[in-house]
Amino acid sequence: MIVVKVGGSAGIDYESVCDDVAELVQQDYQIVLVHGGSDLTNRVATKLGHPPQFITSPSGYSSRMTDKETLEIFMMVYCGKVNKEIVELLQKRSINALGLAGVDGRIWVGPRKKAIRAVENGRVRIIRDSYTGRVEQVNSSLLRVLLDEGIVPVLTPPAISYEGEAINVDGDRAAAATAVALQATDLLILSNIPGVLRDYPEPASLVRTIDREQIEFATKNYAQGRMRIKLMGAKEALAGGVSRVVLGDARSKEPIQNALAGQGTVIQ
Amino acid sequence: MIVVKVGGSAGIDYESVCDDVAELVQQDYQIVLVHGGSDLTNRVATKLGHPPQFITSPSGYSSRMTDKETLEIFMMVYCGKVNKEIVELLQKRSINALGLAGVDGRIWVGPRKKAIRAVENGRVRIIRDSYTGRVEQVNSSLLRVLLDEGIVPVLTPPAISYEGEAINVDGDRAAAATAVALQATDLLILSNIPGVLRDYPEPASLVRTIDREQIEFATKNYAQGRMRIKLMGAKEALAGGVSRVVLGDARSKEPIQNALAGQGTVIQ
Repeated sequence: MIVVKVGGSAGIDYESVCDDVAELVQQDYQIVLVHGGSDLTNRVATKLGHPPQFITSPSGYSSRMTDKETLEIFMMVYCGKVNKEIVELLQKRSINALGLAGVDGRIWVGPRKKAIRAVENGRVRIIRDSYTGRVEQVNSSLLRVLLDEGIVPVLTPPAISYEGEAINVDGDRAAAATAVALQATDLLILSNIPGVLRDYPEPASLVRTIDREQIEFATKNYAQGRMRIKLMGAKEALAGGVSRVVLGDARSKEPIQNALAGQGTVIQ
Repeated sequence: MIVVKVGGSAGIDYESVCDDVAELVQQDYQIVLVHGGSDLTNRVATKLGHPPQFITSPSGYSSRMTDKETLEIFMMVYCGKVNKEIVELLQKRSINALGLAGVDGRIWVGPRKKAIRAVENGRVRIIRDSYTGRVEQVNSSLLRVLLDEGIVPVLTPPAISYEGEAINVDGDRAAAATAVALQATDLLILSNIPGVLRDYPEPASLVRTIDREQIEFATKNYAQGRMRIKLMGAKEALAGGVSRVVLGDARSKEPIQNALAGQGTVIQ
């Protein structure tokens, strides 16, 4: 069982990702696909007159400011456009894909963080209309039922809070929680960057392996931006029993097979 | 087992629909919900600079002109916004809803009609970039697996063609096909009209019952616009073994219970 997270940044080659899923399913791999959609969400939100805003937490992590209107646009793009297009790409390859948001069948459940702190011009501000949270529980039994039916689940945020509200959650960490819940051997987190770069954005500075004890060092010393959250997901996955996490590139042919072969940053 | 179709026109009270689903599930009803989203799709499409167009077939039926860009907006609204909001409303009522488009798990499969004929200023025009079709096969075994897990499936177009393309299909007729495949006792088709009106739009002219043999007469003589397609769905459902179809009103409290009690136009 492998869980593959494919980012939603510009340059991701979904056709090649789906070619690979089809290839691996024929080799009897069980695959759960998790995807993002941030770049397209930014574009649609701007077109709809509600341009994206990003906030930085006191610990330095950047995330989307998700008020109610942003969440609605987010769901249109992630659940309506990206999710269904991936399902369609897989169906065209005779793979019986089925797209679900974390809200569906309580696939991803967790607490909503109603008040979040953001740093603005050096000062901390409290944001209260935030629909964000994190995944604490994964409905792995439902995922197993679907996998047993020969289905490839295609998962996307939002998750659902304990009170039944849709909440934006980080896709990398949700994928990690899913890999843990399904006792996956591998978690592949693919984006538009080759992996952890010692000297961002220089591709030649790719860090080929990171021991799990070195994750914090890498996070503090050379991982940039989104890569730091991917490392957090990797840490959570390994702590939960996943054997190997690969941070790989989704802009080329055979992105999943390349990651399985160890291309990218391998963490174990 | 009952299949409930809720339209996507202005005025539909989704909160009351979901109250009723929750009430009936507690009474051990098995329910599959099918929904539309046309009104909101029109508004979002206009906002995104691709306003809706409607075409009329030579036999007088009106439908959405669905080119590729329209289909993308359609999916954002139907699958991303309306579907997930209904799932959220049900989850808030402790109902484990799961939203699926017809493309997911091949729930709704059928032929794409690549060339369609439309009447324009009295002349017939052929439209070739149309992503529309109809449902011929329903994956009822997957729906049963979900129902057995205690899940309420929430279904929406698009369906998927035999070639794996997403295709816009009529929601009322897709609901009818679903009711037939699941051997449902009742198909309830709820909209923002009280039922078939002998003298549209006068509510007092509601036709309380139609025998199945009278459907064609009603279609020809007094049903208007969308109601004619609902009658076509009703006819297909009854021909497939569904015991009763009710065309009811979804703008008031207890819309499903009212329809089950025979309010609206009852066809059997």
